[in-house]
Amino acid sequence: MQVEYINPFIRSTLVTFDTMLGCTIKRDKLCMADQVSDKYEISGVIGLSGRAQGSVVVSLSREVAIQGAAAMLMMEPSEFDGLNEDVIDAVGEIANMVAGSAKAELEELNLSISLPNVVLGHPPDIRFPSQVKPIAVTFACPWGPMALKVGFTPVHAMI
Amino acid sequence: MQVEYINPFIRSTLVTFDTMLGCTIKRDKLCMADQVSDKYEISGVIGLSGRAQGSVVVSLSREVAIQGAAAMLMMEPSEFDGLNEDVIDAVGEIANMVAGSAKAELEELNLSISLPNVVLGHPPDIRFPSQVKPIAVTFACPWGPMALKVGFTPVHAMI
Repeated sequence: MQVEYINPFIRSTLVTFDTMLGCTIKRDKLCMADQVSDKYEISGVIGLSGRAQGSVVVSLSREVAIQGAAAMLMMEPSEFDGLNEDVIDAVGEIANMVAGSAKAELEELNLSISLPNVVLGHPPDIRFPSQVKPIAVTFACPWGPMALKVGFTPVHAMI
Repeated sequence: MQVEYINPFIRSTLVTFDTMLGCTIKRDKLCMADQVSDKYEISGVIGLSGRAQGSVVVSLSREVAIQGAAAMLMMEPSEFDGLNEDVIDAVGEIANMVAGSAKAELEELNLSISLPNVVLGHPPDIRFPSQVKPIAVTFACPWGPMALKVGFTPVHAMI
């Protein structure tokens, strides 16, 4: 996929964490998605479609998910009983905000976004179609490890 | 969500298995998605958007995934080394066909579909936003257990 497609998603992740969660994060270098180790317990997955078809996966460690939910719901992290329904909804909403702002920036693709799915596992392994070559970036976040994966492919005019 | 939204996805799953994989499956009763136990090792997840926002999760046991990939690629199941990249791509393509035919039937929603993500785990736990109340159906398939989950929510005119 074209590497420039990931930039609006990186910017929207930085802005979402800064303005919605009050947490300053810093991006690391870009890499191919399969070079990012799957150590993230919870991920928000959102599909995008329009003049391109794609999806974005926001992968968070347990600590980032709980701290993020606490910031979003104005609660203390200790009030959450692990990755409960509130945390799962918060991770879906973080993915939704990341996809929503990036969509606005990628105006020429006329994208619309699907509902988020949130995937939990030990950790789960989330793949893209092999021809897509998704791109990933990890972030330095004071709460713990987190990463973003984006895959896009052009839609042919006949579809 | 409106229960009738799942019917086009059920029909497209039946048709995809019948015509593309040469396997006759039979649907069981509808239930809420959280009543379906998570015993499926591999799932294809596709987002849909348009006049409604949604996503569809096609969950397959390891046996169904491998037999399905074998049927799609005209190979023997024994030729696959577990849930390898060919099987992962086949599961994404099955989800794509299920979503694609259902989209055609739900013409009034003017849906477009995202790229499939394929999720593997032990098994993975794939959730929808809690307000969506996704609906599920399991299928009797000669290859093994499989299920379909669909979640949809209306899109407000301003979005």
